[in-house]
Amino acid sequence: MKTLTVDLGDRSYPIFIGQDLLAQKQLVTPYVKAKQVMIVTNETIAPLYLEKTLALFSDFQAEQVILPDGEEYKNLTILNTIFDELLTQRCDRQVTLVALGGGVIGDMTGFAAACYQRGVPFIQIPTTLLSQVDSSVGGKTGVNHPQGKNMIGAFHQPQCVLIDTDTLNTLEPRQLSAGLAEVVKYGLINDVAFFEWLEQNTERLLNLEPEAIAYAVERSCADKANVVAQDEKEKGMRALLNLGHTFGHTIEAGMGYGQVLHGEAVAIGMVLAAKMSHSLGWVNSECVERTEAILQAMHLPTKIPQGVTPDQMLELMQVDKKVQAGKIRLILMKGIGQSLVVDDYPADILKQTLENGF
Amino acid sequence: MKTLTVDLGDRSYPIFIGQDLLAQKQLVTPYVKAKQVMIVTNETIAPLYLEKTLALFSDFQAEQVILPDGEEYKNLTILNTIFDELLTQRCDRQVTLVALGGGVIGDMTGFAAACYQRGVPFIQIPTTLLSQVDSSVGGKTGVNHPQGKNMIGAFHQPQCVLIDTDTLNTLEPRQLSAGLAEVVKYGLINDVAFFEWLEQNTERLLNLEPEAIAYAVERSCADKANVVAQDEKEKGMRALLNLGHTFGHTIEAGMGYGQVLHGEAVAIGMVLAAKMSHSLGWVNSECVERTEAILQAMHLPTKIPQGVTPDQMLELMQVDKKVQAGKIRLILMKGIGQSLVVDDYPADILKQTLENGF
Repeated sequence: MKTLTVDLGDRSYPIFIGQDLLAQKQLVTPYVKAKQVMIVTNETIAPLYLEKTLALFSDFQAEQVILPDGEEYKNLTILNTIFDELLTQRCDRQVTLVALGGGVIGDMTGFAAACYQRGVPFIQIPTTLLSQVDSSVGGKTGVNHPQGKNMIGAFHQPQCVLIDTDTLNTLEPRQLSAGLAEVVKYGLINDVAFFEWLEQNTERLLNLEPEAIAYAVERSCADKANVVAQDEKEKGMRALLNLGHTFGHTIEAGMGYGQVLHGEAVAIGMVLAAKMSHSLGWVNSECVERTEAILQAMHLPTKIPQGVTPDQMLELMQVDKKVQAGKIRLILMKGIGQSLVVDDYPADILKQTLENGF
Repeated sequence: MKTLTVDLGDRSYPIFIGQDLLAQKQLVTPYVKAKQVMIVTNETIAPLYLEKTLALFSDFQAEQVILPDGEEYKNLTILNTIFDELLTQRCDRQVTLVALGGGVIGDMTGFAAACYQRGVPFIQIPTTLLSQVDSSVGGKTGVNHPQGKNMIGAFHQPQCVLIDTDTLNTLEPRQLSAGLAEVVKYGLINDVAFFEWLEQNTERLLNLEPEAIAYAVERSCADKANVVAQDEKEKGMRALLNLGHTFGHTIEAGMGYGQVLHGEAVAIGMVLAAKMSHSLGWVNSECVERTEAILQAMHLPTKIPQGVTPDQMLELMQVDKKVQAGKIRLILMKGIGQSLVVDDYPADILKQTLENGF
């Protein structure tokens, strides 16, 4: 087992990464504040891991709430079902929420924890590759609004994160690929050595070789934790973690949540970022090709799907959280492992990039 | 004009108190971060003060959203209409929300600000006595859940609070009295001199004499700011501010939100706290009588209304935020100006207090 620490002063917390961790009570027990625990999971994960998780918290009074599965349920209405259950079970301010599932469950459970009685502790047990390498690190929580992704939320750090890589064995191949998109992102942002390792180890990752998976998860979490520790509330460099996301969010919202997986949308978004950077003369065509190639090798889409138009995407970009004073801030590239925040670029190059992205 | 400071380190903020402050742009302008401002108000307040408030922010691009008026609308569904408007108007992360109204508007606007894009700044312009002396100080924000008051929320401090005491001239007498209940509370908690001043100046306050009102608002805010500065997140002494509230919340929830005003419920709750303290032998009957007398002189109810039963109240107390490990924590009294947090008392004395409270 590996332990990483996300360094945030008095909100610092450990990430435990390894096989069969769901069987190891002693890891989580010190992070539960009082007797009550509420496990939040979904219909897909519950049959697979709820029993094990109940055993993990068997020293406590553990309740459960099972949500429908999918990004389309990440909204205030479904969030309220968590509050319903917390109140029905008379959970007090000392309750610890446990997020058992992917990014949607993590984001919603974290946000419920941020808001319930104005804030209670929570523990993340991410069961998808995407949530293990991304949403479980950094304390961003929230739900979607029909007009924009993650528009309603809070920064709320977990007490600890338990990553049992064995849970990936039950992950659908499409979900595994979606997670790999976020892994590639860390390479593209500022870790060229990791990007090269990923190019050489794509097959091992797709075959879920435990050592390769553990390394990819650990390095991704470490890369992200490093950024978050320097800029918890996204006043500056944390924005780099949104590489591919401003483009990606508009594809997700434009197609209707749940149609394209978040990781798939990010993959397409990273290719668009590379292509736009190329149009601006900042990267060579080899950089674009390597970006496309690694994502394709991971069975990820690299083109905007039919069902959303460039105009619709531009419209949706206007309400993205990265907009400031009407300017759409984008994360672009000066090379593999050299991303940067940009809000000054010719508008027609953005439009052209979208038009040529299909 | 008086200026108080709520001392919370880098989240410190000023409270401006005086007449005709809604006409004084220079007070708020330094606290608006960028161009966009969203004024949140309700149907009752909009015809009275929206125009003035728009003028107050005329140097900015000010939008507005008008909510229905009443505690029964303080829920996630109505909260979402604020998000709808923010997104429709394409407000970005730099937008400043302005709460123009009473406690419900302040709590909901503050919570919307806490959650929109994971946190944007806001300004409080409280227009009721209750919100001026209570909910505008301390950063507690949130909405109700059918199973409990203020169960969903956040701590989020405003940039500044503008208290124009002239707005009280349009307040219904019943609302004025409800506000006075919270004023009396500060005396009962730890300010016996203020309590005595209130006993002597009740008529002046009911007649809205500007000097008396300004003094009562200022001293209440100062008393509260003093407590909040010492215990922002209610780990300890801030709980004292809930004197009368645990009882009061169960009356509000039991009767159905909007039937009894919050301040009225707190008045009844304070009398119950005094009576229970008397049953425990902690205060003499004079203390109970003075508590009842001052509230009655302010035209406030002091008995539990028909429509809620002691059993119902006990049931609702179990889900109050003050519950820890199944124990209902109450704020009781050792005398006027000497309140304390108690979680160890004979259960039958609580039950008896409720039964005799009608």
